[in-house]
Amino acid sequence: MNAPFDLDRWIPAQLAAVEHALDAWVSIATTADMGHQAPADLMAAMRYAVQGGGKRLRPLLVLAAAQATGAPVGTEAPLRAACSTELIHAYSLVHDDMPCMDNDVLRRGKPTTHVQFGEAVAMLAGDALQALAFELLTPDVSVISAAQQARLCRLLSRAAGCAGMAGGQAIDLASVGLRLTEAQLRQMHRLKTGALLQASVMMGAACGDASAQAATALQTYGAAIGLAFQVVDDILDVTADSATLGKTAGKDAAADKPTYVSLLGLPGARGYARKLHGQALVALAGSGLADVQVLQALADRVLDRSC
Amino acid sequence: MNAPFDLDRWIPAQLAAVEHALDAWVSIATTADMGHQAPADLMAAMRYAVQGGGKRLRPLLVLAAAQATGAPVGTEAPLRAACSTELIHAYSLVHDDMPCMDNDVLRRGKPTTHVQFGEAVAMLAGDALQALAFELLTPDVSVISAAQQARLCRLLSRAAGCAGMAGGQAIDLASVGLRLTEAQLRQMHRLKTGALLQASVMMGAACGDASAQAATALQTYGAAIGLAFQVVDDILDVTADSATLGKTAGKDAAADKPTYVSLLGLPGARGYARKLHGQALVALAGSGLADVQVLQALADRVLDRSC
Repeated sequence: MNAPFDLDRWIPAQLAAVEHALDAWVSIATTADMGHQAPADLMAAMRYAVQGGGKRLRPLLVLAAAQATGAPVGTEAPLRAACSTELIHAYSLVHDDMPCMDNDVLRRGKPTTHVQFGEAVAMLAGDALQALAFELLTPDVSVISAAQQARLCRLLSRAAGCAGMAGGQAIDLASVGLRLTEAQLRQMHRLKTGALLQASVMMGAACGDASAQAATALQTYGAAIGLAFQVVDDILDVTADSATLGKTAGKDAAADKPTYVSLLGLPGARGYARKLHGQALVALAGSGLADVQVLQALADRVLDRSC
Repeated sequence: MNAPFDLDRWIPAQLAAVEHALDAWVSIATTADMGHQAPADLMAAMRYAVQGGGKRLRPLLVLAAAQATGAPVGTEAPLRAACSTELIHAYSLVHDDMPCMDNDVLRRGKPTTHVQFGEAVAMLAGDALQALAFELLTPDVSVISAAQQARLCRLLSRAAGCAGMAGGQAIDLASVGLRLTEAQLRQMHRLKTGALLQASVMMGAACGDASAQAATALQTYGAAIGLAFQVVDDILDVTADSATLGKTAGKDAAADKPTYVSLLGLPGARGYARKLHGQALVALAGSGLADVQVLQALADRVLDRSC
């Protein structure tokens, strides 16, 4: 009998690879293409925005989906795809923290990028991180096949853009102080955080060899996990303290932002998170994939996380 | 004997196609992928930023290079590539105009995007325009081959990022009030405007069938044209009036920004622009391409433009 799968051993091994790759790829050397060289201060701001942790949930989802769909071990596609999702996430935090958006001065206990480097450099660092995400996905075709590059760029651009993350942030901005319906709140979160989390799963699958059945199942899994993540975020905003969260608790309520807790109440939000978790597991069970234990364990972790 | 080539007939025909495509592609319908829909106010800001003219030099360079390298007529790759370069350019103007950067309230006689829509929406619109550029390059592979998609995304991401446009803007920011050497000024402009202009030429060539010789020649042509464009910009800043330019003349000097005129003097800057123009024409002559008259005429236009 096999030992039960231990996510707490799997995650650190993956994170070591992701952190190492991010350090290597967010550097001057990588981007010196066409004989051009990036300025050191901009690169410093980009590295600052990317370093300093976070859960790296998007890269983990990419790597888990790549593993589940049999992406060849030792190829760069999953790691590049993983890092590209984190660069998009990191840039969105830099821009989101700026004075014209959320005006946050601290993130994960460190000064935000614009506090550290000034607003202009922070905005440019965010812009350059988005471009770098697509640079990572388009190395020489000997590293990632053209077909995979095209598919990965397709998924990432749509998840990041106006019908994805940026669109969700625009809805979020416009929703402060409004009373949203559950459908409107869901639409906002599907775009703002859900699209990139779902794309992470699908990008992992694009590195492997997913049947149409598996691809559809993973799309459903990704959508459910993406929304569950946000529902849990809303729950933690009212149940956890700031020290545990690493950010200001109760912020959404203070900002009069609509949340799943304000809409459904705490028990209702918890029930909805469990329901989404169940949808994710059912999708995996119907995927036809043999090795879904990492994706299952990540779904559990999204539901049970305490920060 | 053939009639001499008339750029003033070629340009309007190309622009009609580009404007029509931009209108169609910067719309909610295009981006409704994965069942998501972009919010209307964000799309309105994106359209506002893209409409309202400009020379569309980047799209014209894409289309001219595609034509010179024999890109099949009627395929979408050149037009998608052309529009993608304009979206990157448009987003850079939106972010550049914001209070934390140049703090401009007017562009081409209209309120800038952040004045019209607010800073937060403007920042998100810029972010989403960058993503949309990569969306345009990654349609179904029946529209553009995966190999071309990969190549186009590769060129565009590097031209836009930290070792391209965003990097150049960071150097520009850091250079105000400094006395740069000519090498430093050239490096700044190669990144800030040159990289995207050069990439436009190379993206056009990626839509066609360029030999290694032709690709190298077009790379040289693009670099020369890209730098010449900036030198002429610096000249016009001191010789043209604001009405002709459609923007504030004398702005660089007022902002104490280093320019080719401040560095080389007016005659020196004019001589340098002519030299770069000559380099571009020599490169074309050695390209082995039969049909370079549009690229030649665009090089002339870059040198002789009055606004």
